[in-house]
Amino acid sequence: MSSLIFNKFWKAAIVVIGNEILIGRVLDTNSYKIAKMLTMIGYDVTEIRKVRDDVEVIAKTIKELMLDNGVIITTGGLGPTYDDLTAEALAYAVGSPLCLKDDALEMVRERLEKMGLKLDDTRKKMAIIPCISVPIPNPVGVAPGIALFTPRTKIFSLPGVPKEMEAMMEKYVLPILEKENLMVRAEACERLEGVREADIAPMIAEFAKEHPEIYVKTHPGIENGKSFVKLCIMASAESKEEAERRAKSLLKNLLNRIAQSGAL
Amino acid sequence: MSSLIFNKFWKAAIVVIGNEILIGRVLDTNSYKIAKMLTMIGYDVTEIRKVRDDVEVIAKTIKELMLDNGVIITTGGLGPTYDDLTAEALAYAVGSPLCLKDDALEMVRERLEKMGLKLDDTRKKMAIIPCISVPIPNPVGVAPGIALFTPRTKIFSLPGVPKEMEAMMEKYVLPILEKENLMVRAEACERLEGVREADIAPMIAEFAKEHPEIYVKTHPGIENGKSFVKLCIMASAESKEEAERRAKSLLKNLLNRIAQSGAL
Repeated sequence: MSSLIFNKFWKAAIVVIGNEILIGRVLDTNSYKIAKMLTMIGYDVTEIRKVRDDVEVIAKTIKELMLDNGVIITTGGLGPTYDDLTAEALAYAVGSPLCLKDDALEMVRERLEKMGLKLDDTRKKMAIIPCISVPIPNPVGVAPGIALFTPRTKIFSLPGVPKEMEAMMEKYVLPILEKENLMVRAEACERLEGVREADIAPMIAEFAKEHPEIYVKTHPGIENGKSFVKLCIMASAESKEEAERRAKSLLKNLLNRIAQSGAL
Repeated sequence: MSSLIFNKFWKAAIVVIGNEILIGRVLDTNSYKIAKMLTMIGYDVTEIRKVRDDVEVIAKTIKELMLDNGVIITTGGLGPTYDDLTAEALAYAVGSPLCLKDDALEMVRERLEKMGLKLDDTRKKMAIIPCISVPIPNPVGVAPGIALFTPRTKIFSLPGVPKEMEAMMEKYVLPILEKENLMVRAEACERLEGVREADIAPMIAEFAKEHPEIYVKTHPGIENGKSFVKLCIMASAESKEEAERRAKSLLKNLLNRIAQSGAL
């Protein structure tokens, strides 16, 4: 596909780092939240990968995703423990040495002071980041995030603690990415009672083919023994209002078509 | 690492398929549940990938993961709609043609009859699977799963509906995988009040190095303004009882070491 929407610039990938995710001890909700945030400001999330606390694996993953994506968000691996390896892996992935950065150290010291804690060698580790990167302030916890921009990819590494990730996405990452993009998205949904997915599937397929620039999705369900299908359309435009108008208009269009087909 | 635990045979990867995951409309919990199930019966989940409803992307993902994993579980993309592409992508990934299989068709017909629905062309699609694969019965929904074994990798494709995925893992997939493996895992945890991760980090690192065959993880938290760290050890053995014994014994060992260090 060669439309603007699939240009690498708008493509984003998310990397969730942490053994605890892969052994099923912790349910990752960060990637879901980040995927939603990026999608609503017009980016296309191409892939989400969850990998172990392993420098080579993390570095290889970032390198691969850099080929096809203009934005990479990683979560996890920025703390003071032995299995926090993101800074090192990121440095390895982009071929940069690591530096103990003054501004990062100041951020760590300031946050620790607010909590009445002292700066020791273990905690200093959180200020060692790729020399070509800059630290992202953490308004909730201690570990700074890392922002590293190469000519074609912006990489943002954030802590895995959900509240810290959300605060840093809202305050730092999204404002940067919103400035860059041209589009926003909006969604319109309708619930069709007594309908099954398979009954309307051919019409959905046809409509999706005619409108490659939107997302159409059917969500089947059962309530009180009766089946229903939730039908959603997501459209893009340069403003929120226009995106909402388009989504509603296309949904109405599709619902008319379904009604006329006799499937309802 | 060349110990048995990292042999490809015990390595598993999970692929979650569905645009709705990548646009942040739906929170995926399937990969978390499957990761836990596989880990407890002794498998090592190396990676979880979430990809779009795109035949080439799904096929490429499966092909890549087949290189390093003895087991691949996919979820999603088995329904009757136009964006259900898993069977096709799987066929493409392993170089097999697609076949409308009698046993798969019978499964679909039987499940539809139980729901008082008829078999039409749209629904027949759910019985078109790689010729070299076999259908997995779906005791909850309609779409059969797909089991495809190559000389070095077992691939199981399951529906994305959580209840269907869980039933098919329990009844079909886990029994096959349990028969194959030699190990199970068990976990022991302890909550340390008034402790911070960074304070015990060096001891955790040392212990982890001395015991590469276990998982050690610290989970920080705050309750009523006081910090705590939950410390967990996961160990493997040939029986559940032995695995539990080992996990408890190693945890006790580590707690003693922490107590003696004065960090508490």
